[in-house]
Amino acid sequence: MSQALTRDACAALDAADPLRGLRQLFTIPEGVNYLDGNSLGVMPAAAPERAAQVVRHEWGEGLIRSWNSAGWITLPQRVGDKIGRLVGARPGELVVADSTSVNLFKALSAAISIAQADRPGRRLILSERSNFPTDLYIAQSLARQHGMELELATAAEISARLDERVAVLMLTQVNYRTGAVHDMAAVTAHAHRVGALALWDLAHSAGAIPVDLNGANADFAVGCGYKYLNGGPGAPAFVWANPRHASRFWQPLSGWMGHASPFTFDTDYRPAEGVSRYLCGTPSVIGLSVLECGVDTLLAAEPLGGMAALRQKSLALTDLFLAQVEARCAGLGLRSVTPADRRVRGSQVSLACASASGYAVMQALIERGVIGDFRAGDGTEAEPDLLRFGFTPLYTRFVDVHDAVTALHDILTTQQWREARFNQKAAVT
Amino acid sequence: MSQALTRDACAALDAADPLRGLRQLFTIPEGVNYLDGNSLGVMPAAAPERAAQVVRHEWGEGLIRSWNSAGWITLPQRVGDKIGRLVGARPGELVVADSTSVNLFKALSAAISIAQADRPGRRLILSERSNFPTDLYIAQSLARQHGMELELATAAEISARLDERVAVLMLTQVNYRTGAVHDMAAVTAHAHRVGALALWDLAHSAGAIPVDLNGANADFAVGCGYKYLNGGPGAPAFVWANPRHASRFWQPLSGWMGHASPFTFDTDYRPAEGVSRYLCGTPSVIGLSVLECGVDTLLAAEPLGGMAALRQKSLALTDLFLAQVEARCAGLGLRSVTPADRRVRGSQVSLACASASGYAVMQALIERGVIGDFRAGDGTEAEPDLLRFGFTPLYTRFVDVHDAVTALHDILTTQQWREARFNQKAAVT
Repeated sequence: MSQALTRDACAALDAADPLRGLRQLFTIPEGVNYLDGNSLGVMPAAAPERAAQVVRHEWGEGLIRSWNSAGWITLPQRVGDKIGRLVGARPGELVVADSTSVNLFKALSAAISIAQADRPGRRLILSERSNFPTDLYIAQSLARQHGMELELATAAEISARLDERVAVLMLTQVNYRTGAVHDMAAVTAHAHRVGALALWDLAHSAGAIPVDLNGANADFAVGCGYKYLNGGPGAPAFVWANPRHASRFWQPLSGWMGHASPFTFDTDYRPAEGVSRYLCGTPSVIGLSVLECGVDTLLAAEPLGGMAALRQKSLALTDLFLAQVEARCAGLGLRSVTPADRRVRGSQVSLACASASGYAVMQALIERGVIGDFRAGDGTEAEPDLLRFGFTPLYTRFVDVHDAVTALHDILTTQQWREARFNQKAAVT
Repeated sequence: MSQALTRDACAALDAADPLRGLRQLFTIPEGVNYLDGNSLGVMPAAAPERAAQVVRHEWGEGLIRSWNSAGWITLPQRVGDKIGRLVGARPGELVVADSTSVNLFKALSAAISIAQADRPGRRLILSERSNFPTDLYIAQSLARQHGMELELATAAEISARLDERVAVLMLTQVNYRTGAVHDMAAVTAHAHRVGALALWDLAHSAGAIPVDLNGANADFAVGCGYKYLNGGPGAPAFVWANPRHASRFWQPLSGWMGHASPFTFDTDYRPAEGVSRYLCGTPSVIGLSVLECGVDTLLAAEPLGGMAALRQKSLALTDLFLAQVEARCAGLGLRSVTPADRRVRGSQVSLACASASGYAVMQALIERGVIGDFRAGDGTEAEPDLLRFGFTPLYTRFVDVHDAVTALHDILTTQQWREARFNQKAAVT
């Protein structure tokens, strides 16, 4: 791809894009160039009507009867099966419930139980230092509870640290800061060779890159509903267990919805067969219903090639962005921390910004309608402050990439960032 | 109150009811006499518009910016403070998060930690056999994890069993089957005298009866958003900790939203001060926003006397129902298991039904638009099958009580229940 691609050339790419029609499935505000779908996906056009139907009709009219008549009772499984199609899970293997953090607690608890039974004496949970913090916090809590240790390594070190000491390897497949991707099949195979279990957080994978949980022979997985699945703010999350583990152990959040027979109101907990035991309390019906609209936007791509086609466009978008930044912003102090190698690049690009306050640059971009986000680093060369741009092939156009680089160039060359309003931004990864 | 009160006399009570205007805050379907607000409250009239605003405007237009501009980031505390006004919690003491089951896991974990520190060696969690099952399941899980035991007793036995062996007394204040109410202040005082902590589930209390957590000097509490708080199907739940405990111990669901500084993305977990450490993952923004509409319906009663006034009407409604059943359904095999004593009666009435299948009778009632629910017993005299009727003084009228008894009488005398469709009803308590 030419580094000097003009806006017209980008518009031509959009006109030739076989996925271009998918953008119509969304309502995108006028004047907004949204490159933050890795944090909160945009609203599917079907979402308001679906929310209204659930609230006004299913709740307002159907009331308690809607647990059956509107199918609320099977929503966690029904939406779970749809998400399963995006991540290589078979029907019945994946449920939607709670938040990613809570699901990670369940899945990591189950993994630890299995490791303790099969490989007693192993005391290590291995993870990546730049994993998303909530994953580390949950692992710290469970390590403490089980008398284990959480060992953190850089991505490059993981392979060397993965040995017979490790009970569970817990990784987020796509790094939320850099967008670097772990090879799930290879890393899982390595974990299994040393007798460890592999638990994957798909927060920045599901709906972003092709994932094949069964193909990779993974052990457990969790993921997020409100990023690339476009499920709305605080959408419920999902959890998957390999069928060989699903019915093997309790998870500690033994709520009534995960009971084998929730409506007999037994005094004793008896977990449901399979992954349904990963349900806990009453599911968020409105949130689950709206999430389904988001998942449906990804399934709408299936006749056009599905996740493989979305992946091709995603890579074309990030290729273009990297090339445009290199060609048009040379000398302005930007440095990509996202892998140039397409095989290990997710659906985002993150730029360190040497010449200016990254926070102020992102504020200036947002004021111009180019919405990415800012992620603070620890001040070291290895972990710099980052401008983060997510590229969601369902609705991002090639001209959006061009326009974003234009805005970035203008802000840096005119030092417009010095004037950006410093309103605190509390964004959610 | 006369046992032979006519429908006209009931209509006169409605006309004189100072709370009658509150019914207009709800949208109640034509032809429905809804007596199941203890399971799922009816829809506040404001809910569809609020849901549409959150979905279409805050998400659709505001996108990621709404974490600040729409105040999403403080929703758990803001709605929590409103609920706090209904249960005797001060501002900053109560947050909305997750489900009741998940919050119970957090609160019981914290209570166990404190008990282990202050009263090492105590190994007992004491609860009521007819507590709602999910509470028992969560307690079983934590008992197993901490090497403790869950001891179950009848309500009458609790006092005798509450002694120096008990680490935590965990009770649901209002029994979901019978509507019997524990005296929170007296039972908590007893628990404290023997050195035990008192954890209360307010699932059938919050919005149903006056509750004063600080006045009762309770230790921990959790509660439900979708019953008497009218928060919508699967609405998020709440959790409260007495300020003397709130910052003392970790709870194990150490997600990033409960971190002291969630947006600095520290590698190590450092819990927030106070009850905010009971947050875990990203909150359900749509669910929380709709829940706020439900809570607002209760706060709308404050100028009319608040929970005390609602309590008076609730008791008048259950008094009337009990009297009408006694006067008009004599000899039809109905027997109330709800306390006749107003001081220990919640906002529901449950009837055992000797002469007919309770399940079929409830189906026949529902077919006539009188919606209560059915709760199976264990077949013993002590725990019979129940017809359960919830009376929510915000929207239930005295004529609704009269009409419900008329329907019940007709169904039992004409044996119409034999024809009721036996469609499986999966209701949520």
